[in-house]
Amino acid sequence: MSTNIPVVQQFETLLQSNHVTPHSIARHLQEISYQDYGLFLSNLSKIPKDLLAEVLLELPLSLFKEAVSRLPHKKLADVISYLESDKATDFMQRLEKVAPQIKEVIYPLLHSKQQREISRLSQYHPDEAGAYMQTELLWATTDEHIADIKEKLKIFRKHKAGMPLIKLFVLDEEGHLVATVHFSDLLLFGDEKTLAEVVDTLPSRKPLSIRDHTLIKEVTKLFREFDLAMVAVVDSENRLQGCIVFDDIYDLILAEEEAQAFKMSGTKQEAEEESLFSAQKHRLKWIFINLGAIFIAASVVNFFRETIEQIVALAVLMPVIAALGGNVGNQAVTVTVRRLALGETSWQYAKEILSKEIYIGVINGIIVGLMVGTVAYFWFQIPMLGVVIGLAIIINLSIAGLLGSLLPLTFKHFDIDPAIASPLLLTTATDAIGFFVFLGLAKIMLF
Amino acid sequence: MSTNIPVVQQFETLLQSNHVTPHSIARHLQEISYQDYGLFLSNLSKIPKDLLAEVLLELPLSLFKEAVSRLPHKKLADVISYLESDKATDFMQRLEKVAPQIKEVIYPLLHSKQQREISRLSQYHPDEAGAYMQTELLWATTDEHIADIKEKLKIFRKHKAGMPLIKLFVLDEEGHLVATVHFSDLLLFGDEKTLAEVVDTLPSRKPLSIRDHTLIKEVTKLFREFDLAMVAVVDSENRLQGCIVFDDIYDLILAEEEAQAFKMSGTKQEAEEESLFSAQKHRLKWIFINLGAIFIAASVVNFFRETIEQIVALAVLMPVIAALGGNVGNQAVTVTVRRLALGETSWQYAKEILSKEIYIGVINGIIVGLMVGTVAYFWFQIPMLGVVIGLAIIINLSIAGLLGSLLPLTFKHFDIDPAIASPLLLTTATDAIGFFVFLGLAKIMLF
Repeated sequence: MSTNIPVVQQFETLLQSNHVTPHSIARHLQEISYQDYGLFLSNLSKIPKDLLAEVLLELPLSLFKEAVSRLPHKKLADVISYLESDKATDFMQRLEKVAPQIKEVIYPLLHSKQQREISRLSQYHPDEAGAYMQTELLWATTDEHIADIKEKLKIFRKHKAGMPLIKLFVLDEEGHLVATVHFSDLLLFGDEKTLAEVVDTLPSRKPLSIRDHTLIKEVTKLFREFDLAMVAVVDSENRLQGCIVFDDIYDLILAEEEAQAFKMSGTKQEAEEESLFSAQKHRLKWIFINLGAIFIAASVVNFFRETIEQIVALAVLMPVIAALGGNVGNQAVTVTVRRLALGETSWQYAKEILSKEIYIGVINGIIVGLMVGTVAYFWFQIPMLGVVIGLAIIINLSIAGLLGSLLPLTFKHFDIDPAIASPLLLTTATDAIGFFVFLGLAKIMLF
Repeated sequence: MSTNIPVVQQFETLLQSNHVTPHSIARHLQEISYQDYGLFLSNLSKIPKDLLAEVLLELPLSLFKEAVSRLPHKKLADVISYLESDKATDFMQRLEKVAPQIKEVIYPLLHSKQQREISRLSQYHPDEAGAYMQTELLWATTDEHIADIKEKLKIFRKHKAGMPLIKLFVLDEEGHLVATVHFSDLLLFGDEKTLAEVVDTLPSRKPLSIRDHTLIKEVTKLFREFDLAMVAVVDSENRLQGCIVFDDIYDLILAEEEAQAFKMSGTKQEAEEESLFSAQKHRLKWIFINLGAIFIAASVVNFFRETIEQIVALAVLMPVIAALGGNVGNQAVTVTVRRLALGETSWQYAKEILSKEIYIGVINGIIVGLMVGTVAYFWFQIPMLGVVIGLAIIINLSIAGLLGSLLPLTFKHFDIDPAIASPLLLTTATDAIGFFVFLGLAKIMLF
């Protein structure tokens, strides 16, 4: 099926290239779907079957659903068999979410070994390390000889061609993890040596392993701190269950980072990728929450209507108060949220963060307050108005620094995500407090 | 030197633990410096010398400078010798920046081999892949036998204990990169086989390599897309120069992600980590830029002073216009900046992004405009005021959606970082346009 449409031609070129990846195929498919939904479906069949399941996993849920509903069940089961155990589990869970009836049909068609692995991995909570591990590993016991391992290696390479092979896991007879050995270590020993002898020559260091029920966010911290390539996953009795590899974890870390940027603006990545309607709906939800808060600031202004009626220059300067407060407060929020995300949560840090943000708020408040006060004096030719706006800015920016750090710290303390709640509450608070201070000072000092 | 201060006791426990990392040591040191600057210096001497240089690299520049000025020159040269070539180059470049006179003294004290590597790597621009590569590699030519490689491996492990060893690089006689071989591949061949024979049995795939002058941001894209563990770096004639390993790249990707969050709020990570003064100064700079913009919005309001004087309820509703416009615009900016960062820069995407954001702006504008219009009607009992604010919100939010996507796209087109410039210009524009539309409609429709 050939075509003249450029994006489809590009797609065909991509599929024939040497270094094609599921990710790049998925991105092209998405672009095709923007242009023509029908073309998206017809191009699915061009994807090599050993890559197709991975490509589907990279698609947004709506396209994933569309694709799995169109593919023949037997073909679907076949392409899933090319997935590593953690991804196969992920695939079945997505299927359960968007098309449970298809999942019911597909599951019995899978190899019984893959079924067992999926059901084992599905037992873990999505927050736990176990849910992210691969179970296809090369392992051997201490009494095995190098020659045995070479045989195992040959078989592994034949049947699990695409699986990552970073280290050999060494177990004792009961399946307890004793060591992990780099393949270059094995190279230096003769066929007749046992693994126990190899391990003895290595610098004695307990292999780094984590428990299967450990929270995955602890594991990401570990990878970040130690620059790991891989970590073994064990159960409560130190028996090997699987391993987690760096690329899965880094994808997770990047997703967390991305999610944070989205959260702070009141958007959500999954909603954005899902469909236009879900993006619009999610953003509207956030605007509604904000709207309630905005009316608090409006009410403060309403309280001072008479004052504004007498000196309308106050209305002209109100946007200055609001914008500066929001600006300085958000600087403090961004820096504080980041520090909390990096784990600076002890009381020691809290004191340090608060005093830093208040200090910066006060200093920048004084500098900006003096400047704006002078400008206002010359602009409106009312000397006291210059004093009022200057003072109001100094007070408002000091409070913005305090709140910009105090809000995230407080949310964190009560286990609420500081990235979601802080920017909203901060803007409301600096608006309302800023108007109150500015218009209140005006009422007292200008009449 | 023992002490009763808890943070120092924690530090000593950390140093004795099994899995201590330069990163964790550096974080503890920083915490100590917050409490007592003198203690920071005295605790430097407790750090093992094979880790010290890496710890110093993890410190903010101000502490780095303090530390290198206090350490004896000979000790400094000694600890640098434990660094991999890319990190040693980084170290000397930092030294050049904060204390060029110390760098002049230290450089001649380094091993001549390390000097050569540093001077070679220093030739690369910090944007180029060459600046990030390690030059300590295990390589061999096609005519070497497995037995030769085992000898090389022994020597490499002895002299470069901590160096990462992911693959063996295979070169021809002229130093051209022919293949990369996993150590588990070598395991399956006898001592008498040559590398050429090993390579022949592998699935024929050109090794993935990049040019030394390739931009590092292209390399990070490659790692993201292909989940690489390592990539070989070659010169224009395909001669092996070094390799780039995943952990360096992922640190870089994470740093980019972090930098973006900071930029959008007008803060800068390095300035924040450097010192209180530099953080305050950098944030003030941003407020100043903003201030100019804020006065544009104030001038728009000033233009309508008489209108506000007659109906002061307009001043009450001004914050609603400003906050909603900023909110909706920033949602669009965040999503668009993220999409551009992920490489969605073709014209096809631009059209798709613009129409998406305008659509969402219009829909949410209509919903929110109707709501706020109704509220304003009941609040102020002026029917036309409800119509005016409702209409103004619909127009303002549609424009916010348009600008929130158009600004980043335009900046990107002119090669200006969209994350820095967009949020600022957006807020000014939605404030000024929002006030103009709202107060202008009021002037026309309310009198």
